[in-house]
Amino acid sequence: MRRRNLSRVLHAVADAGPLSRAAVAARIGLTRAAVSSLVDELLRAELLVERGPGRSGAVGRPGTQLLLSDRGPCGIGAEIGVDHLAVCVMDLRGQARTRIGHEARNQGGDPAAVLAALTGMLRRAEAEAGAVGLRPAGLTVAVPGLVVRGTATVLRAPNLGWRDADLAGLLPDDLGPVTVENEANLGALGELWSGHHSPAPASFVHVSAEIGIGGAVVVDGELLRGAHGFAGELGHVPVRPEGRPCSCGGRGCLEAYAGEAAVLRAAGLTPGPGVRLGALTGRCEAGEPTAVAAVRRAGTALGIALSGAVNLLDPQLVVVGGALARLGPWLLPGVRRELARRTTAAAGGRSTPVPVTASPLGPDGPLLGAARHAMRTTLDAPGGA
Amino acid sequence: MRRRNLSRVLHAVADAGPLSRAAVAARIGLTRAAVSSLVDELLRAELLVERGPGRSGAVGRPGTQLLLSDRGPCGIGAEIGVDHLAVCVMDLRGQARTRIGHEARNQGGDPAAVLAALTGMLRRAEAEAGAVGLRPAGLTVAVPGLVVRGTATVLRAPNLGWRDADLAGLLPDDLGPVTVENEANLGALGELWSGHHSPAPASFVHVSAEIGIGGAVVVDGELLRGAHGFAGELGHVPVRPEGRPCSCGGRGCLEAYAGEAAVLRAAGLTPGPGVRLGALTGRCEAGEPTAVAAVRRAGTALGIALSGAVNLLDPQLVVVGGALARLGPWLLPGVRRELARRTTAAAGGRSTPVPVTASPLGPDGPLLGAARHAMRTTLDAPGGA
Repeated sequence: MRRRNLSRVLHAVADAGPLSRAAVAARIGLTRAAVSSLVDELLRAELLVERGPGRSGAVGRPGTQLLLSDRGPCGIGAEIGVDHLAVCVMDLRGQARTRIGHEARNQGGDPAAVLAALTGMLRRAEAEAGAVGLRPAGLTVAVPGLVVRGTATVLRAPNLGWRDADLAGLLPDDLGPVTVENEANLGALGELWSGHHSPAPASFVHVSAEIGIGGAVVVDGELLRGAHGFAGELGHVPVRPEGRPCSCGGRGCLEAYAGEAAVLRAAGLTPGPGVRLGALTGRCEAGEPTAVAAVRRAGTALGIALSGAVNLLDPQLVVVGGALARLGPWLLPGVRRELARRTTAAAGGRSTPVPVTASPLGPDGPLLGAARHAMRTTLDAPGGA
Repeated sequence: MRRRNLSRVLHAVADAGPLSRAAVAARIGLTRAAVSSLVDELLRAELLVERGPGRSGAVGRPGTQLLLSDRGPCGIGAEIGVDHLAVCVMDLRGQARTRIGHEARNQGGDPAAVLAALTGMLRRAEAEAGAVGLRPAGLTVAVPGLVVRGTATVLRAPNLGWRDADLAGLLPDDLGPVTVENEANLGALGELWSGHHSPAPASFVHVSAEIGIGGAVVVDGELLRGAHGFAGELGHVPVRPEGRPCSCGGRGCLEAYAGEAAVLRAAGLTPGPGVRLGALTGRCEAGEPTAVAAVRRAGTALGIALSGAVNLLDPQLVVVGGALARLGPWLLPGVRRELARRTTAAAGGRSTPVPVTASPLGPDGPLLGAARHAMRTTLDAPGGA
């Protein structure tokens, strides 16, 4: 119970700080004496700091203000991409304090070798964090694949070539609780917690793309995980049922039309190391007709798949993130057109169909989402720090 | 708090009864004295009855057993179909005690006239219930359309021709709390509470069909309602994106391939009053090739739409209900084939794709779900009885 109340104090300050002890007490419905005792413990653990006095001119004695510490416990997020590794240290205020990124050929790489390289980066990040008074209290790793719910097992990451890879023994265990999670899910959590949407949408569909296309569904502020942890596989929703074969064994999946390789080929480029979706942004900005047409067609395919998702889920918002976000000006009109045509609630009386936005986080979403997820393990369970 | 504990006692008896007072106390973690006081109140309100003594030979004094009453408060479910109206009275034991059904041409009918006819049936049901000692304590009405979340407003029921119809003022207000709900959602709840699945699946997708095709999604034992209450619109998931126009204004929706009119036409029948999907069961049983082919093609279309749903939601189970359930032997092979081809988790290592079953409730699902929903309002809030 005390641990739960410690967490409630931290969340109150995270949501609305700086706050006085009295303001915290009012927000969470505990006595000021109880809050003072909790705050003392949180100050000692370097989870909170004091700043004072409060604004002058306020009625009564201006108390010192509490805010989350920018020293002490922090979260570490990591991302295993197809051709990069990245690590980010985030303090409790949500500031990314250290970022380390490397190009890496992870495709077809042995998980142990990839994780050894990542562990080296985590140790460097830990040292850099230590130099500014931060100590890791949680580690969350984003992977482009299906993670079995509640485990560190990657059932399948086709773009890495991994199957049944258990990462638990391959990651350091002294950086706090370890979570391995699908990158699309972490991208969606990053978006949810980013503060870009005010108020944060209770329910949305999030699309992200690196080589594959991932999706994530947030309902009532929580990720929809599915019975096995595989919910959100937007990339394999059929959009041309008798169309192109897909690497998954199916046919006509969204990924075969709006995945990176498909879009690059349609734009006249040969997918391969170093040739990524980002290359299309400049071409589209320059008005290169093949590139623009390729991205527009991808937008239509994405809109068809999202129409199915919106009909099934009735979200408040659709967010397009990852590498696709930067192609928004050419991609999103087709998405919006298909949603307007194909979502029944739009036809049925809603004045406008579901809004679609490009994520300001773009390709950083999964890494920042991972770091914030790790950081939040401390806010949620401060006794673990 | 007392009201909540009254509900916990009722749910314990509903889930596991007959139970002794001591067994109830053990299940819900209250003292036997507290439970006895709650039970006395529930006996007085005719929500529980006693039967006794318990089985002889048990250790200790055999206590009387508690079970839910088959007199006293009951739920009334009602269904507004395109060509019928139905009412069902359900006692707290989940037994349908009275059913009244009428053919009715509701398509294009004025909501006030349709509800007046329904109200007449409700009054007859109330009288029949009263004759066996039951009194209505909740009314739930199933409609084939989009109901605005938390209201009695039918935003759109295309197969009835209704738009923005507020049913609140058109239904009796003396039969307990009134709920208006989409029929597909109630079909799914009926399935969830039916006892056909043991244990009840935490997450499943439910398909139901009358003229249109409705879907409902249950996640963690709760209906997924969506931001506006419109989740589960499986009928308008695109399956042939540039295919047939659909009544919704879209193109290539599932309903244009597996909806009643489409399947009847493909089977060489002319849809119209009295010609319903049920007519195909006999033809399929007789091996009539056109009918069998029509239903098989509908199964393929349904499988494509469900593949998208399964990729997005990762449910434990898919249940096909309503009029489609009776076509299971010809419909489900195509559904299963498409799911096996197109759901990534199946390709990714699960040994079998998501199971698909036909609902034993069949076309009765929404009405029984409505009655059970109404009945459960009493179990959930017995103080209201």
